[in-house]
Amino acid sequence: MSNEIRVSLTNKSLVTIDDLSNGEIEALFSLADVMSDSMNEQIDVCRGKIMASLFFEPSTRTRLSFETAMHRLGGNVISAVDIGATSLAKGEGIADMARVVGSYADIIVIRHPWEGAAKVVADYAGVPVINAGDGGHQHPTQTLCDLYTIKKERQTIKGLKIALWGDLKYGRTIHSLIFALAKFGANILFCPSSGLEVPEHVIKKLTTEYGGELERYETLDQTAKGGLFPLDAIYITPSQPHQLAMMPNISIQAELKSGIDALYVTRPQRERFTTTEQGQELEKSYPVVDKKLLKSKAFRKTLVMHPLPRVDELAYEMDADPRSMYFKQAARGVPLRMALIALLLGAKEVSIPREIDSFIQKKEYAVYKRDSGIRCSNPRCVSIQETETKYIKPEFKIVNRKPLTLRCVYCEHGFEPKYIASSDWHEGRLDSKKYHSADSHWTRKIKPENLIIFDSEDKAQAMGFKPSSYVRAQSLEK
Amino acid sequence: MSNEIRVSLTNKSLVTIDDLSNGEIEALFSLADVMSDSMNEQIDVCRGKIMASLFFEPSTRTRLSFETAMHRLGGNVISAVDIGATSLAKGEGIADMARVVGSYADIIVIRHPWEGAAKVVADYAGVPVINAGDGGHQHPTQTLCDLYTIKKERQTIKGLKIALWGDLKYGRTIHSLIFALAKFGANILFCPSSGLEVPEHVIKKLTTEYGGELERYETLDQTAKGGLFPLDAIYITPSQPHQLAMMPNISIQAELKSGIDALYVTRPQRERFTTTEQGQELEKSYPVVDKKLLKSKAFRKTLVMHPLPRVDELAYEMDADPRSMYFKQAARGVPLRMALIALLLGAKEVSIPREIDSFIQKKEYAVYKRDSGIRCSNPRCVSIQETETKYIKPEFKIVNRKPLTLRCVYCEHGFEPKYIASSDWHEGRLDSKKYHSADSHWTRKIKPENLIIFDSEDKAQAMGFKPSSYVRAQSLEK
Amino acid sequence: MSNEIRVSLTNKSLVTIDDLSNGEIEALFSLADVMSDSMNEQIDVCRGKIMASLFFEPSTRTRLSFETAMHRLGGNVISAVDIGATSLAKGEGIADMARVVGSYADIIVIRHPWEGAAKVVADYAGVPVINAGDGGHQHPTQTLCDLYTIKKERQTIKGLKIALWGDLKYGRTIHSLIFALAKFGANILFCPSSGLEVPEHVIKKLTTEYGGELERYETLDQTAKGGLFPLDAIYITPSQPHQLAMMPNISIQAELKSGIDALYVTRPQRERFTTTEQGQELEKSYPVVDKKLLKSKAFRKTLVMHPLPRVDELAYEMDADPRSMYFKQAARGVPLRMALIALLLGAKEVSIPREIDSFIQKKEYAVYKRDSGIRCSNPRCVSIQETETKYIKPEFKIVNRKPLTLRCVYCEHGFEPKYIASSDWHEGRLDSKKYHSADSHWTRKIKPENLIIFDSEDKAQAMGFKPSSYVRAQSLEK
Repeated sequence: MSNEIRVSLTNKSLVTIDDLSNGEIEALFSLADVMSDSMNEQIDVCRGKIMASLFFEPSTRTRLSFETAMHRLGGNVISAVDIGATSLAKGEGIADMARVVGSYADIIVIRHPWEGAAKVVADYAGVPVINAGDGGHQHPTQTLCDLYTIKKERQTIKGLKIALWGDLKYGRTIHSLIFALAKFGANILFCPSSGLEVPEHVIKKLTTEYGGELERYETLDQTAKGGLFPLDAIYITPSQPHQLAMMPNISIQAELKSGIDALYVTRPQRERFTTTEQGQELEKSYPVVDKKLLKSKAFRKTLVMHPLPRVDELAYEMDADPRSMYFKQAARGVPLRMALIALLLGAKEVSIPREIDSFIQKKEYAVYKRDSGIRCSNPRCVSIQETETKYIKPEFKIVNRKPLTLRCVYCEHGFEPKYIASSDWHEGRLDSKKYHSADSHWTRKIKPENLIIFDSEDKAQAMGFKPSSYVRAQSLEK
Repeated sequence: MSNEIRVSLTNKSLVTIDDLSNGEIEALFSLADVMSDSMNEQIDVCRGKIMASLFFEPSTRTRLSFETAMHRLGGNVISAVDIGATSLAKGEGIADMARVVGSYADIIVIRHPWEGAAKVVADYAGVPVINAGDGGHQHPTQTLCDLYTIKKERQTIKGLKIALWGDLKYGRTIHSLIFALAKFGANILFCPSSGLEVPEHVIKKLTTEYGGELERYETLDQTAKGGLFPLDAIYITPSQPHQLAMMPNISIQAELKSGIDALYVTRPQRERFTTTEQGQELEKSYPVVDKKLLKSKAFRKTLVMHPLPRVDELAYEMDADPRSMYFKQAARGVPLRMALIALLLGAKEVSIPREIDSFIQKKEYAVYKRDSGIRCSNPRCVSIQETETKYIKPEFKIVNRKPLTLRCVYCEHGFEPKYIASSDWHEGRLDSKKYHSADSHWTRKIKPENLIIFDSEDKAQAMGFKPSSYVRAQSLEK
Repeated sequence: MSNEIRVSLTNKSLVTIDDLSNGEIEALFSLADVMSDSMNEQIDVCRGKIMASLFFEPSTRTRLSFETAMHRLGGNVISAVDIGATSLAKGEGIADMARVVGSYADIIVIRHPWEGAAKVVADYAGVPVINAGDGGHQHPTQTLCDLYTIKKERQTIKGLKIALWGDLKYGRTIHSLIFALAKFGANILFCPSSGLEVPEHVIKKLTTEYGGELERYETLDQTAKGGLFPLDAIYITPSQPHQLAMMPNISIQAELKSGIDALYVTRPQRERFTTTEQGQELEKSYPVVDKKLLKSKAFRKTLVMHPLPRVDELAYEMDADPRSMYFKQAARGVPLRMALIALLLGAKEVSIPREIDSFIQKKEYAVYKRDSGIRCSNPRCVSIQETETKYIKPEFKIVNRKPLTLRCVYCEHGFEPKYIASSDWHEGRLDSKKYHSADSHWTRKIKPENLIIFDSEDKAQAMGFKPSSYVRAQSLEK
C-alpha cells in the first residue's frame, strides 16, 4: 500500500473552509509552494480556461489577487465589478445569473453581500465556484492565505499559540480563521479590543464541534491579565490539553512569555458597528500594535499578521520589521489562489503523505427541510431575500436538541425556534395532532425524521395543529 | 458551377439584423455549430486580436457573453463599462471616441442608450462594429441567438408557428425578432399581455416590407379566443398563405392545437412603462407561463424560450422541463458570438449551399438628405443629441408617399413631416417657389430627387418659400 | 569606442517626463517605430507578464490605450477602475495598496487625483510604475505621444516653432509639454485664450531651469499682435537665440508667417475653472480653430494637434484635412506605450547613436527633509492627505534662495516659507537659538545643511526657537 494519497478537487467548489479536509488543505499548500517556486512555468496550466469574477461588493485587493492568479496560469478572466443594484435589480434571482455565467466560464469567483449567496451560486452554476466573501459569513481563501503563511513560517500549525487581536466581533476573516486554527490543532488566544469580543455563537461552535477547552479570563485579576496584553480567553486544542489547560493564571502568563507564535491584528470594522457602538467610539480605546508593544520577550519571534487594509491599529514603523508578515501574506495569496484554481479546474492533482489527515471529524447533523413556514432569522441570509424565495427552499441542520437549535445551511446562522410537532400524529387518533413548546420534553421524544418545527403558533395552527395543554397554559399566563 | 457560395463578412459591421442576408445568417449558424462542437480548438483563431467592449449602459450578461466569445477564440479584450456621464460628459461626440478606440482595437462591441449610436460608431471606427443594443432600437445578436436556438432544435425556421408572449410593446428583442422571423418565413402568433400589444408601426413594417398577411382577433368571440391563450393576431408568412390564412376561427384553434413550435416569453419592461401604464399596474394581469399552462396538447413539443432576465412571468418549476430552452439560448450565445467575431475579423470564412437564400428582397427606398432643417422626431435618436449634431447630417429614407413618411437612417424611427416643396421652382417663375402640405397631391407629383421636406412652415419660409394657396387656406381655418 | 550607447530602462518608473533623458526618449521613439511597423510580431514580447491598471479617476481613453499596448505585447492586464471613495475609504494609505498590487503585477499604471500620488506608488510598489496622470501635476505618456507625433512628422523637435493654443492655465498636458519642448530645444509660442494664460510658476521654471529667453507681448500694439493670432509670449530656445530673439515685433510676425510647425490646441478645462472664472464665461471668447483660421500662409504646413477630447474649439471640418494629426496622435499612443512597457519590463533594450544627448543639464538642488513641521502648501498634494501623513515624510528641494523657495518632491509645487533658523545654534551660546524672517540676509548666510525652515512662528517657537529682533519688530508692526 502506497504511503501517498492522490488528492483531486476537480469540479468541487469552495464555499466555506469546511469544504476542504485538512489533508486537502495541506495538498493545496504544497501545490502553492510549487507555484511560488516556478511562477513563470505555470503559464500554460490553464490556457484556454475562463474565470468569471463577479463582485457584487467592491474589493479591489481580493479581486486583483484572483485575476492575477488566473493570468499567471495562462487563463483568461471575464469580470463584473460593482454589479450592485442596476444589473440584477430587475428582480432576477442569483441562481439564474449563476446558470448563465456558468455556461460561459469554467470557474466562478463570487463576492456578494448576502450570506450564503456563494452556496446558491455553487448549487446552480454547474462549474466550480469560489466564495470570495459572502457578507459576514465566510471568506475562505483569506483564511487559507492566513494558514498558509503560518504554515510556511512555522512548518506546522498544530500546537502553535496564535493570538487574535482587536475587533474579534465583526469581520468574517476572524471567525473563519478561528475554526480553521481549531481544525489544525492550534491554541488560540483571544485579545479583543474592549467591546469587540468574539460572539458567543462562535465560542459555542468552537467548543461543541472542535473539542478542546476554553479558559476565560473575565474574572482574572486585572493586573495579571493586563500583564502582557488584553487577554480575554484561551482556547486550548484537544491535542494538547495538558500543556496549557487548567493551569493557574500565573503559569499561563509564564507560558505565554515563552513565546506567541503569531499575532493576528485586525482593524476596527467601523462600518459594521451598531449605532450604539459607534456612539461609544470603540475605536478610541483600540489598541495599537507597534514596536513598543512587541518589545516583550513573548513577541521576540512572533509573526505579525494582518489581513489588510490597515488603518491605525498597526504602526507603519513595523513595516520594515522582520517579524511583519502582512505584505507577504498578501503576496502569497497569488500562488495559493493559483493552486486552488488549478486544482478545482482539474489542471493539477497532488499526492500527499497518508499520515496527514484531519484529526477532527466533522459532526453530522440531522437535516430539517420541511415546508412548515420556518425561515432563517438572519436578515442578511440569501434564503430569505425576496428575489430568492421564489426558488430556494429553506433547509437547516438540527445542531442541538436542548435548546432546539437550527442552523441555516446557507448562511450557517443558528437560532432557536419556539414550537414543534410530530408528523406521526395521523397514525394515532386525530386529537394527537398537537404542537408543543420547543423547550418541552417533546423535542427529544419526537423522532428526528418526524419532527415538524414552527416559528410561531399561527403557522402551527395554519397547518391544522392544536396547542398542547402546556402551550395553552403558557399562553394564558401572558 | 459550384453549388457552394463562399461567405465572407470580413470588415463588415452588424448594426441591425438587416445587415445580414438570410444566407449569411445560415452561414453564421453553421460556423457556430463548428465552434460549439470543438470549443477547445478555437484558441488560436483570433490570437493577437483585440476586442473593445464599450458599454454605456449596464449589461453584465451580454457583455460577459461577448468577452467569453473573444477569449475562447484566443483574443484579448479591453473594456469600458458604465461609461455614462463622467467620461464623455465633457461634450465629446461619440464619433471621436469611435475613431480613437477604432485605432486601438480590431473590433468594437458597443451598447449605448441612444438609438442609432451603433451606426455612428460603425460609420467612424474604421473597424468592424457589433451593436450590443442601442436604446430601444436593435440588439441583433440577441435575435441571432433566438433564431439559432430555434434552428438548432427544429432544423428550420421556415413555416414554424412561433408564439410571442407577454410584453410585445416595449423591449427591442421582440421587435427585432418579429422581423427576423418574418424574413425566415415563420408564422408569428402575437399573445400580448393586456395593454402591451405590438406597436402599429411594427405591424405596418411587417406587412408592407415582408409580405404575408395579418389576421387580427380583436373581434373574435372571447371564449374562442381565450380557448388556448390570449391570442391577439397571427402573421402568416407569404410562403404558406393557404395553410393558415383566412380560415374560420374555429379551425385556427384546431391548427394551433396541432402544435406551437416555440413560445417566446418576455418580462414586463416596467422600467419603460409610461406613468399611465405604471398606474394601471399592467404587470398584475401579466400572464404566467407554468406547467399548468403548458399542459395543453398544443404545447406538447413547444420550445419555451426567454431572453432573460426573468422575473415572475416564467415559473421556476419549468427549469427542469425538457421543453425549456432559455438557459440553452443563453449558453449558445457564446459559440454564436465566436462565429460572428471570427467572421467579421476575417479569421474564418464559410461556404454555404447555393440554394439557401433570402426569399425576401429588401426594399430600396429613396434617400432624403437635404439641409432643410428636418430632424428625426425620436427624442432618443443619436442624430439629434447636442454633442452629435455638430457632425451628423440628418438622413432619411422616404418609405411612403401617402402619407409622406420618412424613416431616420440612424434610429429607423418613422414619422410624417408636414410640408414639402420642389427644388425645381427656379426653372419656372419665381412665384412658383411655394411650399405645400405634405398630404396634398404635390407629394406624389414632385420628383423624389427634387423633393424638399420641412417640419414647420417657419423653416420653409426661412428658406424663401411661400405658402401655397391651399396651405394658406388651412392656416386661416385655424 | 562604439558610436552607439545601449539604453536600458529595466525596472525604472516614469513619474514625470524628467525621469527620462533626451537620449532615452529618442530611444523610446525608435523602439515605438519598430513596434508600429511590426505590430503583429510583438505578441510574445511580454507573454506571461501582468500590468495592473489602477484608475482612481475615470479615463477611458488613456486606460484603454495602455491596456491595448499590453495586450499587443502578449501580456495580461488586471484593472481597477473608478476605485474612488468606496475601496480605499477605510482609511488605508496608497503605499499599502502599492505594495500589495506590486506583489501581484509586474508593472503598474496609475491615475490618481492627488498630485504626487504616482511617486508614492513608485516608491513603494517594488515594480516599475507609469504615471497616467496625477491630478494637475503630470501625465508624461501624453507628453511623449505629443513629442512622438512631432518627431515623426518633422524628423526633429529642435528649433521648431510650436504654438500652444487655448487654455494654457489648466490642464497638465500643456505644462508637461512646455518643459519637454524646451528640453528638446523647440521655440514655443503661447497663444492663450483670454484669462487662461500660462501660470507664472511655469514661466519661471522654464526660464530658470531650461535657459532660453522669454519675449512677452503684453505691451505689443494690439493690431500687430492680433495680426495672425492671439500671441501672448514666445519662448526662444537657447540653442538658437539669434534667430528669433530680440527682434522688432514686426519681424516676429514676418518670421511666424514663414511657418508654424505645430499648433497644439486644447479645450477649455471648465471643470477646473474657479467660480469667478466660471462666472466670466471664459469659454465664450474661446477661439475656434477651423479652416478659415488656418488659411494663413503661416499654417500651410502646420501640424494641427489636440490631446482630445475636443469640444467646440476645433471644428469637425478639420478632420479630413491632411494637416490634422489628432487622431494619429491618439493612435500612436499604442506603439509608444508598447515601447515604454517593453523597456521598463526589460523585455527590450535599445541602442542609440552617441551624439543624441540632452543638451540641458538637469539642475541639482539641495534637499530639505527636516521634521520642522513644514508641509507642502498645495491642497491636492499627496503628502498632506490625512491617510498619507502617517508614513510620508515631507521633502523639498530648495530651488531658490531669494526669495527662499521650496519645491515639494511629490507634487513639484513651489512655495515661499516665512521663517528660518540654523541648526548650528547649539554650538554657540543658547541665546543664538533664534529664528529669522525668510526674506532676511540669514537665508543665504546659514549653510544649506544647517537650514531649518518653518511655515509659522508657532512652529519655530514650539521647537524652542526665539524670534530674532527683526522678526519681533515685524510682529509689533502688525
